[in-house]
This record gives sequence, C-alpha cells and structure tokens, in this order.
Amino acid sequence: MRGYVFHGPGQSAWEDVPDPGTKEATDAIVRVDAVTICGTDLHILKGDVPEVRPGTVLGHEAVGEIVDVGGDVHTVRPGDRVLVSCITACGRCHYCREGMYGQCRGGGGWILGHLIDGTQAEYVRVPYADLSVHVLPSTLDSADAVLLADIFPTSYEVGVLNGHVRPGDTVAVVGAGPIGLAAIATARLFAPERIVAVDLATPRLDAARQLGADAVADAREAPEQLIADLTDGLGADVVVEAVGVPESFELCTRMVRPGGHVANIGVHGRPATLHLEDLWIKNVTITTGLVDTYSTPTLLRMAAAGRLPTGRLVTHTFPLTDMEEAYDVFARAADTGALKVVLGGERHEEVVPFRAA
Amino acid sequence: MRGYVFHGPGQSAWEDVPDPGTKEATDAIVRVDAVTICGTDLHILKGDVPEVRPGTVLGHEAVGEIVDVGGDVHTVRPGDRVLVSCITACGRCHYCREGMYGQCRGGGGWILGHLIDGTQAEYVRVPYADLSVHVLPSTLDSADAVLLADIFPTSYEVGVLNGHVRPGDTVAVVGAGPIGLAAIATARLFAPERIVAVDLATPRLDAARQLGADAVADAREAPEQLIADLTDGLGADVVVEAVGVPESFELCTRMVRPGGHVANIGVHGRPATLHLEDLWIKNVTITTGLVDTYSTPTLLRMAAAGRLPTGRLVTHTFPLTDMEEAYDVFARAADTGALKVVLGGERHEEVVPFRAA
Repeated sequence: MRGYVFHGPGQSAWEDVPDPGTKEATDAIVRVDAVTICGTDLHILKGDVPEVRPGTVLGHEAVGEIVDVGGDVHTVRPGDRVLVSCITACGRCHYCREGMYGQCRGGGGWILGHLIDGTQAEYVRVPYADLSVHVLPSTLDSADAVLLADIFPTSYEVGVLNGHVRPGDTVAVVGAGPIGLAAIATARLFAPERIVAVDLATPRLDAARQLGADAVADAREAPEQLIADLTDGLGADVVVEAVGVPESFELCTRMVRPGGHVANIGVHGRPATLHLEDLWIKNVTITTGLVDTYSTPTLLRMAAAGRLPTGRLVTHTFPLTDMEEAYDVFARAADTGALKVVLGGERHEEVVPFRAA
Repeated sequence: MRGYVFHGPGQSAWEDVPDPGTKEATDAIVRVDAVTICGTDLHILKGDVPEVRPGTVLGHEAVGEIVDVGGDVHTVRPGDRVLVSCITACGRCHYCREGMYGQCRGGGGWILGHLIDGTQAEYVRVPYADLSVHVLPSTLDSADAVLLADIFPTSYEVGVLNGHVRPGDTVAVVGAGPIGLAAIATARLFAPERIVAVDLATPRLDAARQLGADAVADAREAPEQLIADLTDGLGADVVVEAVGVPESFELCTRMVRPGGHVANIGVHGRPATLHLEDLWIKNVTITTGLVDTYSTPTLLRMAAAGRLPTGRLVTHTFPLTDMEEAYDVFARAADTGALKVVLGGERHEEVVPFRAA
C-alpha cells in the first residue's frame, strides 16, 4: 500500500510501505476512506515533535471501513464504517477508568502518527479497537465525520468544557484557525451571551463570524480593551487559547475576568510568563489538556442530527493519492485560505470554498 | 482609642486615633477583643501594597463585641460576640450573588486595614455588617476563633476546595507557614491518601507533621522526586502553593500529575514562568484566588465542634497594647518560631509553645 512517511525534519513522501496486519488480538485494520491533516502534523514535519521516528506514517484522524479484527475485538467487525479517533485507549488503566483516555498509561493515548504508523495511508492498524474507533451513523458524510476524529472533540473538551462555558457568558476565542472555529461552534451550544473571536487574519475572522462569533477583533489592536468595553470593565468569563504561542496565552490572561477561566488548547513549544502578581487575587482558573475524546460519541450523534457544522470547516478536498499537494495547500494556509483539507471521502473531486451559513 | 497605624513603608506605631463611629446605616462598630497579624500586614509595612494610604489602621482579622449598629443592620446587635471577617461583602453585586465575596464590586472585598481602617485597634467600624461579621458560638475561644477570620477560610477555599482534594489523593503542600499548615489541616477533612509538606525550615516541617502531613521534604532536595517515588512516577493529584514566589509556584507545576490541580494561595509580587511546552498536554488545572469566606459559617461550626486545630497554630499571645512587640516577634519568625501571634483574647498573658497533638 502507500502511505505518507516522515523521514526526518523537512523530509516526507507519499510512498510504498508494507501493508499493516493485526499484531495484537485487540487490533483492527481499517481501510482509510477519508483522512485529514492536522496542524500537529506540520509541527512534526518541522521537527518539533522529536519522539516521532523517521519512517513513521503520519496522521491521527480517519474515516474508513474495518477490514480485519483480532480475536479480542468485540464492538466492531469487518464491514463496519468507523471513525478512527486520534486517541487510542486501553480502557483498563487508571486514566482510562476515569475517562481521561488521552493520558492512557496502557499503551494508548496519542500514538497514531506519533509513536506508531498513522492514518495517512491506504490502511491503518488501530490498537485497542474496541475503545479507539466509533461506528459511524450511515447518514454522516465522511468529510463531516473525519473532523470528529480530533478537532471537534479537542475544541469542545479542552476549550469549551474545560472553560466551563455557561449561558450568558462572554467567551473570547483567541485564534480563529480550525481549532478556534470549532471552539466557537461548540461554545454556541451553551448559549453564551456573546463570542468574540481574535485573530490576525481577516479571512479567519470572517469565518469566525460565519460560525457564530458575535464580534471579532484584530489581535494587534488591543482586543482586551474591546472585551473590557463589552463587559463593564470586567473581562471575559471564558477565554480559549487556540494558537499556542506565549504572546497569545498572555493575552488570554489579560482578557479574563476575576473568577473566569482560561482554557488552553494551543500546542506550545515555549514557556509563557504567568503574571501571578496580577492574577493571584483574581480567582482565575487556567486549564491545559490533550483531548480525551470522551465526548466523541455525543458529538457524533449531534453531527448526525445536523447540529454541528463540521464540514463547513473543510475548504479543500483531494483524492487520497494527492497527499503531497494537500500538505502543500494546508501548510500555505495564509495564501490558500485553507482551514481543513480532507483527502478521500465522497467529495474528493471538489474544491469547496468556505460555506456560509 | 488606640490603633496600629501605617505611616508609609517602614513606619508604623500603636498610637492614639479617633474613635470610629457608624458612617452608613449598614455599619457596625466592634470592640476588638482579639486580633492577629497576617503576613500581608508585613507586606504592607514593606511598601508592597501601595494602595494602603499612610494613616490607615492595619489589620483585617478580629474577634470582638458589637457595641453599635446602624439602622440597616439586621443580623447582629450590640452585645453579640462576633468574628470580623477579612472580607466585607455588600451582598448585592454580581460577585456577591455568586458567593464570590472577595471580588465584591459594591464597596466590599478586602477593605479592612487596606482601603479603610482595620482591626488592629480597640474598636473597628465594619461596613456591611450583616454579611461581614459572624456571631460566634459561645464555646469557641477567641484565639481559636480569630484564625477563622482569614487563614482557615483562605487555606480551605483557595487551597483545598479550589484544588479539589478527594479521598485517596496525594496532596503536596509547598510552604508550611500558617497558611500551608491550615491547608494541611483542612485537606485532611477529605481523607487524602497522603499529604506531603515541603518547606525550607525544619521547625515548620515538624509542625506540618503534627498537623497531619504524612511525609515532609526539604524544598532544596528535589521534592518532586519524592512525590514521583510515592506515586508510581505520576505526580501529586493536588499541589497547594503557599509561599508566593516564582520558584515555589514553578516547583508546584513540576510536582503535579497529568490531570491534577495546582491551587495557588501565595501572594505573589513577581511573575512566574509557566512551562506550557510541558504542561499543554498534561490536563492540569491551575487556580488562583483571594478568599471569599463563603466557607466561614461551616468552619465556625466545625471549630466549635473541635474538628479544626485552629488554636494550635497560635505560638505567641500578647495583650492588645503590646502590638509593636507582637509585630516584632511575628516579623522575626525564623528566629522566634512564630506561626500565628494573637493579641487580646482569653489567653493574652500566655506565651504558648507549639502544641503537639
């Protein structure tokens, strides 16, 4: 088969690789029908994630069909159309028993396209299949579904739920890339009074408005002042960090009200300054997190019911074989306007412009 | 009357000041029978809290008797023996309605000995008396009770409750001064598996053991390794910061397990470094806070029932008139072994050594 192989920083190719087979009785083999590229994959290509060994097939999100299962797989069988979650879960360790699958100590967690071969290939071996794939509702389009493998549960769990968004809240989302946009879309489920999106790029702020932001602010133009003006000087109830650089995190801590929450989703490579001399007295809660995907079954039901705008984040689709072109379009998002790119799936001939509501 | 007056950094005296009288219909005047000195008072004397104007009577903790009330005070009357809380609450603003009295926007919050004259005097005017004093159980000794004005609710709310201590947890408390010791004593209420106290001073670590720490560690000797050894390499479920310097906060973030809580109680004057490059993936929750005192009624009942070792933190007592000597003993805690000093009250002739269980 063919897969997209990391060969060290700056080196990767769509090339022949051995077909995967079951290694453990809890494995499933999935034929990949649709796959997407994550910002994290770009970090890996830059060499920012040194634990990824050269030779690894990348990718941790897919929709596909089960073609084989080990003898200890009980919840899926060949022929099932499934979502391959970005998080693999043994289901038995301390963390899995608490639903904190992202921290699995039994050999799971984020392993696909990280510690073992991933989903950007024609086939993928998924360990612990019982808890690591989800049977898909037949009505759900693959390009819609594949966004539930990572970005929607990440934005919802690590941003909206960790941030405790409540009805009537003022929510600020810093960063209106795919993760921030999914945070905006899922924050809406809790009827906040307003959502304010902050970014540097006007097209992304436009997309934020279309996905439910009530106001937008240029990150260079003192967005904390806009938030203060909107909230009687208090600050936002919830601030979601969806960028991953110190400056954006520090902006979040200036935008939050006393008693509010800062929910960090961003993947950071450098430390930030925490202004405890201001924050110690403010009753703030700061959370970080890797997604656990405990919400994936719920999000799947909601997407099947048309309650989540997952596919609206898909700006470009390609056949699976155009992996290298898809990476190029995604990596040059500032020029191409790419939000999420999807390879394979029912719509792989289309190039889909951002879809207004 | 006489009071302890701040005259600018390094200058203060026990001296004649005007008797307070009610200014608002919601005020009460309290005759001070027992009062204590807080680490925050020392910060004020050093000039670290610039909003305290010269001429202000210090102190935000007291036990006393109501001697006068304004026409709009309904829950207490002259003759009542009360606890004067460090937090004054209007009861009507957005924050008070949510029980977040420390952030009161109606003229309360931490104001005594900060924005208005405080409790280190023979009499004190307490605004919003209905929500800012608590009638004391008759059985409760004043020296026990006065520790419920600030340090016990602070340690309990900002440390133990914000940190979500649960049965079976490993709890690390960094800093074994009065606040850290009260955190240890109140963390015990939730039946943790173990509490580990971390400090630089052996006498404080001894006190920590006597108040319920199961293990102690010298802060200079890699306490994170001890925590790791005790927890199968994971880290503490809850880490309480009770020092207030960047180094101790940063130590806390190295001691917490994935999915754990860091509850900051420390009053910080400088920013800390937040190692988001390690923490983003760890599902940690970091909280800060000024006490709200919503727990004070509960803590009073527990103290009256003998369930809180409040008075055991009192190492030195003085008559009220010995304020300057008491400040000196408290400020030189490293030499004097002072934990909490109490002025006035039933035991004001005693010098009480730290009382073992």
